[in-house]
Amino acid sequence: MVKKTEISLNHPRAKSLKTRHSLVSHVKSGVVTLAGVLAHGRGEAFDYLLGEKTTETAHAAIKTAAATMLLAEHPVISVNGNIAALVPEGIIKLAEVTGAKIEVNLFHRTLHREEAIKQLLEKYGAKEVLGVGEACSAEIPEICSERRNVDPKGILLADVILVPLEDGDRTEALRKMGKTVITVDLNPLSRTAQWANVTIVDEVARTFPLLIEESKLLKNQTKKNLQNIVSSFDNKKNLATTIEQINQRLSGLAKQGVYIPEANELYKEHET
Amino acid sequence: MVKKTEISLNHPRAKSLKTRHSLVSHVKSGVVTLAGVLAHGRGEAFDYLLGEKTTETAHAAIKTAAATMLLAEHPVISVNGNIAALVPEGIIKLAEVTGAKIEVNLFHRTLHREEAIKQLLEKYGAKEVLGVGEACSAEIPEICSERRNVDPKGILLADVILVPLEDGDRTEALRKMGKTVITVDLNPLSRTAQWANVTIVDEVARTFPLLIEESKLLKNQTKKNLQNIVSSFDNKKNLATTIEQINQRLSGLAKQGVYIPEANELYKEHET
Repeated sequence: MVKKTEISLNHPRAKSLKTRHSLVSHVKSGVVTLAGVLAHGRGEAFDYLLGEKTTETAHAAIKTAAATMLLAEHPVISVNGNIAALVPEGIIKLAEVTGAKIEVNLFHRTLHREEAIKQLLEKYGAKEVLGVGEACSAEIPEICSERRNVDPKGILLADVILVPLEDGDRTEALRKMGKTVITVDLNPLSRTAQWANVTIVDEVARTFPLLIEESKLLKNQTKKNLQNIVSSFDNKKNLATTIEQINQRLSGLAKQGVYIPEANELYKEHET
Repeated sequence: MVKKTEISLNHPRAKSLKTRHSLVSHVKSGVVTLAGVLAHGRGEAFDYLLGEKTTETAHAAIKTAAATMLLAEHPVISVNGNIAALVPEGIIKLAEVTGAKIEVNLFHRTLHREEAIKQLLEKYGAKEVLGVGEACSAEIPEICSERRNVDPKGILLADVILVPLEDGDRTEALRKMGKTVITVDLNPLSRTAQWANVTIVDEVARTFPLLIEESKLLKNQTKKNLQNIVSSFDNKKNLATTIEQINQRLSGLAKQGVYIPEANELYKEHET
């Protein structure tokens, strides 16, 4: 459907195009849904506005996320199709470093998809993948989609849950249950970004290596030091700064209206 | 691939989710490509920034677009997969009111897709659909993709072309050929938005009913009145205002960081 176009390394957006293609390549196996492809497109647009780089505010959230996961008693990484397709190795490494469990949790849920995701993660070395099939014997009644079914050994028990690329209803329900929620979401205005305790506004393929690195660095810190990192972080303020960054980038462009020089020439020709 | 998940009417973004699902439902028949699904996601991101509503600047562009189409001698609506999937009925109604021809013009072109789109439009009552198969015997050499092939009875002859959800290269080429180009594009920074004569920064499912309504209202106006509407519209200024509106909205949100009242309550609880 999308042609396997060769991506030139010189292309100004080569990295983003590569990520896109790696996502799309997982549609056939059922790991990624069309809704997932769409959501990725939305993320791309926000990444464009952020300048396609990990901002300072994202770095601050990543550090806090690492400390939060290390402090947790029962941390869980909630995995959906897109995240499994984009950073399969990263999920496993992060789980290893932080001692987190991995649980599959899907909006568009079928046993086939759950198993496809489990297989993908196992291919990359995952030893235990929760949330597949009959294992989801517990229910979160506050969630009005198939995501309500969770694994009693995983999300139900968890105190801290990393839910990258999440839908808003679920984040809201998890927060209301008293869970601490960390998310990675490129849209600082999304309901997930708004409801989470720690919102990393960044692209997951960039975030995961940084989050793993930060977790390794902080792993031997004292509990007190980790708590200090968490308590000095203000998610609300961090989100505000992120939105302001996007805004400032747009401000410059707003002054011009049409910013492509050649396109501007055409206006001038007609202004006579 | 995507299950017909029930979208609760209470969901705060039900309208957007419904539009998304209607797009995705057309992938199987070949009307919509994966690239089209991704592009829709990008559009959703900009709709977030606009507040998911038709702005005053969009209304001004819609009025001008209606007047421009009514003044045209040979108006044409250029149809791709996404627009056919999202507003099949709207395309036909608008063509009827403005006397425009309908031409299929695709970036990812196959005879199968052209025919799937033609069939979809005919199902909704289209009597003539140009640009399918052998009908595209003319060429626009300036366009370096399969979109260069056009119908001599349609786009080649046209003085005014409505190209919703268009790619930048083509808009640029059409402008350079001296055509008047109207577009509907949620991204005011896109090359299409930048190159078009009249840029409606809005979501097509919201725009089309308004554009049809406006065309009906203006249909009996004198040529002079219509010309006044067109000449008093400044696309560059309108684009600048649109970007400025996004800017102001983000400014307000940046001050808050978290703008969902209930999510904000949770922060307050923890601030004690």
